[in-house]
Amino acid sequence: MGKSPRRQVVVIGLGQFGMALTRSLAERGAEVIAIDRESEKIQMASAFATEALCFDATDEEALARVNPSRRDVCVCATGDQSKEAAIICTALLRQLGAPRIIARANDELHKRILLLVGAHEVVNPEWAFGERFSNRIVYDRIIEEMSLGTDLVITEFRIPPVFIGHSLVELDLRRRYGVIVVAIRRGEKGTVSLPDPNEVLGSDDILVVVSHEGAVARLLARG
Amino acid sequence: MGKSPRRQVVVIGLGQFGMALTRSLAERGAEVIAIDRESEKIQMASAFATEALCFDATDEEALARVNPSRRDVCVCATGDQSKEAAIICTALLRQLGAPRIIARANDELHKRILLLVGAHEVVNPEWAFGERFSNRIVYDRIIEEMSLGTDLVITEFRIPPVFIGHSLVELDLRRRYGVIVVAIRRGEKGTVSLPDPNEVLGSDDILVVVSHEGAVARLLARG
Repeated sequence: MGKSPRRQVVVIGLGQFGMALTRSLAERGAEVIAIDRESEKIQMASAFATEALCFDATDEEALARVNPSRRDVCVCATGDQSKEAAIICTALLRQLGAPRIIARANDELHKRILLLVGAHEVVNPEWAFGERFSNRIVYDRIIEEMSLGTDLVITEFRIPPVFIGHSLVELDLRRRYGVIVVAIRRGEKGTVSLPDPNEVLGSDDILVVVSHEGAVARLLARG
Repeated sequence: MGKSPRRQVVVIGLGQFGMALTRSLAERGAEVIAIDRESEKIQMASAFATEALCFDATDEEALARVNPSRRDVCVCATGDQSKEAAIICTALLRQLGAPRIIARANDELHKRILLLVGAHEVVNPEWAFGERFSNRIVYDRIIEEMSLGTDLVITEFRIPPVFIGHSLVELDLRRRYGVIVVAIRRGEKGTVSLPDPNEVLGSDDILVVVSHEGAVARLLARG
């Protein structure tokens, strides 16, 4: 089907989130136009962005010159410094015909206003990370987890001691906890493999499972 | 094996990350002691935290009173406001015998210093989220992804149009791209199931796969 053309992304506001996003987008081959008011940040971003432009993104004329309507995605990442700037910038992007606007919110009210003035999606890096991180703190065996749709999750966790020396057939996690094992990882840097049901688990083994929310927590509380 | 006792966590600094973490920990049943200098934030946190205390966490005597050595995890989440406060607070927690200290960094130098003064782990919510988010922007079919160890990832993505009407046996993704399908999700809110190799894929199907980094990007670029 041929290669898709390179994604063209505008990132406005080079705080920590905007800068990390710009670098990471560039590493993945996207064309990034990075915008900030501070020349120091522009200098830093120019090392990896396709273009790094120093201007105030609440200035309509200046913003129009980057042609938001012709970019795949415009990210207004300025939320942490000034709520007003994020709102004005988002409204301008919408008015200038940007096809997909992602804005960064500071709080719930800010989020609602950003959606009202035209953001297609609103993100809050600190909330998102905080929620995700809490599971790692509460269940110290959980290494990572990822949501799948409304209430299904993939979880990666160190097996509880009672699992050691038993096979997946014996443990019967699907029937007992509604947990489907999709991979076994042997040791921190070990290889991931699709599980053989008769494989016997060792003390360093890590399971990757699909389940409903809370099922792994129940398993770990009882295990 | 009996239930494990409730995790006891201290969260210092109720900015957006600290507040989201406190709320999320409380929802998951942890006992959270939340600390901030601002009484407004303490008032907000008292709605869900086990205890919400208003004091300056760089004050050694005050900090000692929450008994960091007896808590499972202490999170110094103050990084966004003041680097110095985060460094002092982390050093104090270590000195007071906290068994596990997670600190929030502002930049690379800040991270190195926090590790030097005693943090066991350093996080930066904005970097972490920025990196993760960039994949969703570059590959608009990618819904979520999660790292497994050094270079393996789980990816959830909408199937490219060329896959429609073909079975997993026909597509042979494992041989062609090194991609192992672990689940199929039908529609945004659909059910996740372990894949039947002969199942024919439809236009709304979402695949959940395990692969090396970059394999899904290659598949999507060619698909």
